[in-house]
Amino acid sequence: MTNQLIKSCVIGKGTKIWNFVNLYSCKIGDDCMVGTFVEIQNDVIIGNNVRVQSHSFICEGVTIEDEVFIGHHVVFINDKYPKVTNKDGTLRKYGDWKLQKILIKKGASIGSNATILGGVIIGQNAVIGAGAVVTKDVPDNTIFAGNPAKQLKVHKVYKVIKFQQGI
Amino acid sequence: MTNQLIKSCVIGKGTKIWNFVNLYSCKIGDDCMVGTFVEIQNDVIIGNNVRVQSHSFICEGVTIEDEVFIGHHVVFINDKYPKVTNKDGTLRKYGDWKLQKILIKKGASIGSNATILGGVIIGQNAVIGAGAVVTKDVPDNTIFAGNPAKQLKVHKVYKVIKFQQGI
Amino acid sequence: MTNQLIKSCVIGKGTKIWNFVNLYSCKIGDDCMVGTFVEIQNDVIIGNNVRVQSHSFICEGVTIEDEVFIGHHVVFINDKYPKVTNKDGTLRKYGDWKLQKILIKKGASIGSNATILGGVIIGQNAVIGAGAVVTKDVPDNTIFAGNPAKQLKVHKVYKVIKFQQGI
Repeated sequence: MTNQLIKSCVIGKGTKIWNFVNLYSCKIGDDCMVGTFVEIQNDVIIGNNVRVQSHSFICEGVTIEDEVFIGHHVVFINDKYPKVTNKDGTLRKYGDWKLQKILIKKGASIGSNATILGGVIIGQNAVIGAGAVVTKDVPDNTIFAGNPAKQLKVHKVYKVIKFQQGI
Repeated sequence: MTNQLIKSCVIGKGTKIWNFVNLYSCKIGDDCMVGTFVEIQNDVIIGNNVRVQSHSFICEGVTIEDEVFIGHHVVFINDKYPKVTNKDGTLRKYGDWKLQKILIKKGASIGSNATILGGVIIGQNAVIGAGAVVTKDVPDNTIFAGNPAKQLKVHKVYKVIKFQQGI
Repeated sequence: MTNQLIKSCVIGKGTKIWNFVNLYSCKIGDDCMVGTFVEIQNDVIIGNNVRVQSHSFICEGVTIEDEVFIGHHVVFINDKYPKVTNKDGTLRKYGDWKLQKILIKKGASIGSNATILGGVIIGQNAVIGAGAVVTKDVPDNTIFAGNPAKQLKVHKVYKVIKFQQGI
């Protein structure tokens, strides 16, 4: 399909990729879904049963484990202080800046319009609220929201669990 | 035009749709505008004279009345706690989660980069500030901004009205 | 390439433009980069050595000086109170609203998912944090972050400078 730009990628069985995507030199597991208007850069590794919703941008240095949900318009960042030029005024080239990796652990859910800063680890089954700006690590099984993202209090987490369990 | 993916939609007279869009099984009224890089999902209903600016994502369950302005990069959400898997570890299918509807009433304006959570009603002529994360209902004729979005005080609202009236 | 929509633009030497872009009647300098899923409107002026990352939207009225970094999903706004209709109920046409200009000075860096409101000037070498909503002018050599964006305290700025200098 001419509306898909997919170059040098490894894509697993049963994975569905929609139109208007730009994927290059990344690895995507089995039974995933990649939505419209998504860009995934080189050396990104995505596990199995992962959903990447429309308009999201996944940069080099991001690893996403199995069963992760990436909402719409989610942005990952791998450069703490991006600049066009170096201190000496020359243009920054690849290698002139430090790549900051990101790890999203199994079962985590990242809300739409969230921004994930470089160097961050998001724990297993953690939930990131829509529109959150995540600047530090998120422990397993916690919920973070806001700008900058902060952990929700326990009674709110109970509300979430109750909602999920339908009680 | 090959850069437009429009499938099973009902689109009114005088409505202009730009390139690189992905629209399916939605209904759009007369004299609307849909910008570039927009996705509109099935069962979305949009009235007349509505503007949907570039990069916005409108999910299933959203109803937009006449004369609404949707800024750029606006995201709607219809699933309170998205997960890839159910509690029993099986993959979530359509129907395993509760669709949360959204209603945007006549004449409302949603600022760019705003995020509208599921279950919310945005009132007539209400204004949502750019970058706001709207987590609860917004009354008619009010202005909400911030993350989470809060109502602006009355004196700020007067400033807005003065600005709009050019006084 | 059929995946690029570029109409009536002036584009400098050595400038690289990726796929799925929508550029019209804008001017882009030399040795720039424009990422995927970017829209740049008429009368935008961009200097030399500027990077515009994927998914960004640059509206009419924006001027970007040399060596500026525009992150992913950055949105500029040129209309303070967008509405579909005028006060008399007629549809707003071009000229019925006041265009608010934006100036991004040399060497500034705008973080991903930032929103820049109309009328704002962002100073030389200023840094805007990821996810920030910039509602007022940003002085030269300062760092602003948050929603609404506020200036970071001096000790945090020192941390940034140290990081950039590798000390």
